[in-house]
Amino acid sequence: MISRTDVENATIRIAGHVRSTPVVEVEPDLAGPAGALWLKLEYLQHTGSFKARGAFNRILAAAEVGELPAAGVVAASGGNAGLAVGYAARRLGVPAEVYVPTTAPEVKVAKLRRLGATVVRHGREYAEAYEAATKRTAETGALFCHAYDQPEICAGQGTVGRELLDQLGDLDTVLVAVGGGGLLAGVATALEGVTRAVAVEPESVPTLHAALAAGGPVDVEVSGVAADALGARRVGDIAYDVAVRTGVTSVLVDDTEIVEARRLLWDRYRIVVEHGTAAALAALTAGAYRPARGERVAVLLCGANTDPADLG
Amino acid sequence: MISRTDVENATIRIAGHVRSTPVVEVEPDLAGPAGALWLKLEYLQHTGSFKARGAFNRILAAAEVGELPAAGVVAASGGNAGLAVGYAARRLGVPAEVYVPTTAPEVKVAKLRRLGATVVRHGREYAEAYEAATKRTAETGALFCHAYDQPEICAGQGTVGRELLDQLGDLDTVLVAVGGGGLLAGVATALEGVTRAVAVEPESVPTLHAALAAGGPVDVEVSGVAADALGARRVGDIAYDVAVRTGVTSVLVDDTEIVEARRLLWDRYRIVVEHGTAAALAALTAGAYRPARGERVAVLLCGANTDPADLG
Repeated sequence: MISRTDVENATIRIAGHVRSTPVVEVEPDLAGPAGALWLKLEYLQHTGSFKARGAFNRILAAAEVGELPAAGVVAASGGNAGLAVGYAARRLGVPAEVYVPTTAPEVKVAKLRRLGATVVRHGREYAEAYEAATKRTAETGALFCHAYDQPEICAGQGTVGRELLDQLGDLDTVLVAVGGGGLLAGVATALEGVTRAVAVEPESVPTLHAALAAGGPVDVEVSGVAADALGARRVGDIAYDVAVRTGVTSVLVDDTEIVEARRLLWDRYRIVVEHGTAAALAALTAGAYRPARGERVAVLLCGANTDPADLG
Repeated sequence: MISRTDVENATIRIAGHVRSTPVVEVEPDLAGPAGALWLKLEYLQHTGSFKARGAFNRILAAAEVGELPAAGVVAASGGNAGLAVGYAARRLGVPAEVYVPTTAPEVKVAKLRRLGATVVRHGREYAEAYEAATKRTAETGALFCHAYDQPEICAGQGTVGRELLDQLGDLDTVLVAVGGGGLLAGVATALEGVTRAVAVEPESVPTLHAALAAGGPVDVEVSGVAADALGARRVGDIAYDVAVRTGVTSVLVDDTEIVEARRLLWDRYRIVVEHGTAAALAALTAGAYRPARGERVAVLLCGANTDPADLG
C-alpha cells in the first residue's frame, strides 16, 4: 500500500530528473455534457512514457538510505518500464541489466543498449525473463525494479497525478489507462479525497476489472492492440488495494474503440500516442465513461512509444 | 505595418476561438550553453497550425466594423492557410471559397471540403489560383484572406508570441520559421523591446534573407523539403518592414538539417511536426543560431500537417 505522503516524497525526490509535462485544454464536446476537458501530455516525459517517474523514485529512494548496491539495478521488460529503468540508471550513473524474452524485437533491444543497459535475452515468454531477472537479483544483490508492483514505483508514477492537480486545481475526474496498475495506484493515491480516478482497460486485458469482480488479483488472458503496453497478466497488489481503498471503478473499451481514439488524437490534435494510452480517451469517445453535466475531466496521455506509420 | 496594439486587440478578439497552446521545458543541451530551452506546442492549434489565429482575427475584425460581406471569405491556399480560413469560417457561420491549383493533392482538397469550404481548382500553379481568387473577390465583394501579408492576419499570428510571453515571462529569444513571414511579423511585434525574435529559413526558400540583403522583398527560387509550408516566392511587405524595424536577423538551415531536426523531435520528445516547423529547431541543432551562455530560448513549433509515416 502507498499513501499520499509517499507521492509527496517522490515528487521532491525526483524533481529535476523528470520533465514537468504540460496540459492542453481542448473543446469538451468529446466528453458529452462535460464542462471542461484537458489532455495531460505525459508522453513528452523522458523515454516517452510516465515510467521514468517510478524508475527514478525507486533508484533514488534506495540511494537515500544507502541501499543502492554496487551491482546496480535489474528490470524485466522489453517495453516502457525497461527503457525508463535504463534511462534513469544511466542518468544516475548506476549499472543496469534489463531482461527481455528472446522474442523481443531487435529495435527495442537496440534502444535499451543505446541507453547503456546490459540486455539479457532469456526465455521465450516474459514470465521466463522475469524469473531470470529476480534470480539474478538474488545472486548479485542488485536492486530489482518491478514494472508496476513496488511501493516506490507506484509512488513515483503518482507524481504525475500530483503535478496535474498543481496545474489544474479544480478537477473532478482523471481517466487513467491500466495494465499492471502502477500508474493508477499512484495517481488514485495522489488524487484521493479530492478528484476521482477512473480506470480504463481494454476488454482484452481486463486485469483490474477481473480483480474487482473476484475480490482480489487474478490472472486474465492477454491479447489485443494494447497488449504491448497494458499486457500484464494480473493487476498488482498495490493497485488493487488502492483501487478498493479509493473506490476506483474500471470501465472497458474494445480494440476498435482504442484504434479510433488513437486516430482521433492524431487527426484532431496532431498528438501521437500508443494504443494503450489511447484507451484512456476511448472511454470518452466510445461512451464507456459518461461525464455528468459540467464535469471537469482530464485524460492522462501516458505514453507514445509507437510506430506512427499507420497514421499517415 | 502592425503595432503591438494590433496584437493586443487580436488577442482579445480571438479569445475563446483558438486554443491556448502549452509550452514544455526540455533540457537545454540541444542549445549549447543556453540556460533554458522551451518548446511552444502551437501545432496543437485548431487545424494543426498557428494559421487559425490569423484567420479568426481577419474575419472577426471585419465583422466588428460591419464589413463582413454576405459573400463570405475567399482564400488561395491548398495548405495550412486554406485549412485555417475554412475552419474559422465554418465556426463563425460564414461561407468560404478556397482556391487551389489543379495540381493540389486530392487529400488536401477533401480536407477543405470536410470543413465545409467550397474548393475551386484553378490553374496549374499557385500564382494562377491566387490571381483567380483575387479576381473572384473583386467580383463578389467577399473578404479576401491573404496567407501572410495582411495586417489582421499578421496581428492574429502574433497572438502566439503574446501568449508565449504570458507563459514564460523572462525569455531572451524565440526561434520562428519563416515562409511568407506572417508569423514572424506578428511574433516580432508582440515581442518588440522585450524578447528577440530570430527568423529561421530553409536555404532553399530564403525569402527574408534575400529581402534583407536586397533592401526589400524580392522573388526567390522555391524548392526543398519545407516548400509545402514555407514555400512563398517572396516575403510579405509587412514581415519585411517589421523585421527591419525590430532588427530581426535571419539564419539559414539546409534540408538535411531540417530532416534531422524533425526526426529528433520524434525520437527525443515524441513530437511530430512538419518540415517547415522543424526548421526552427534545426537552427539550434545545426548550430546556425548559437545561444549565449545562460540564454533563455524558446522554439515555436508552429505546425504538424505532415505525414508521420517516415518516422516509423
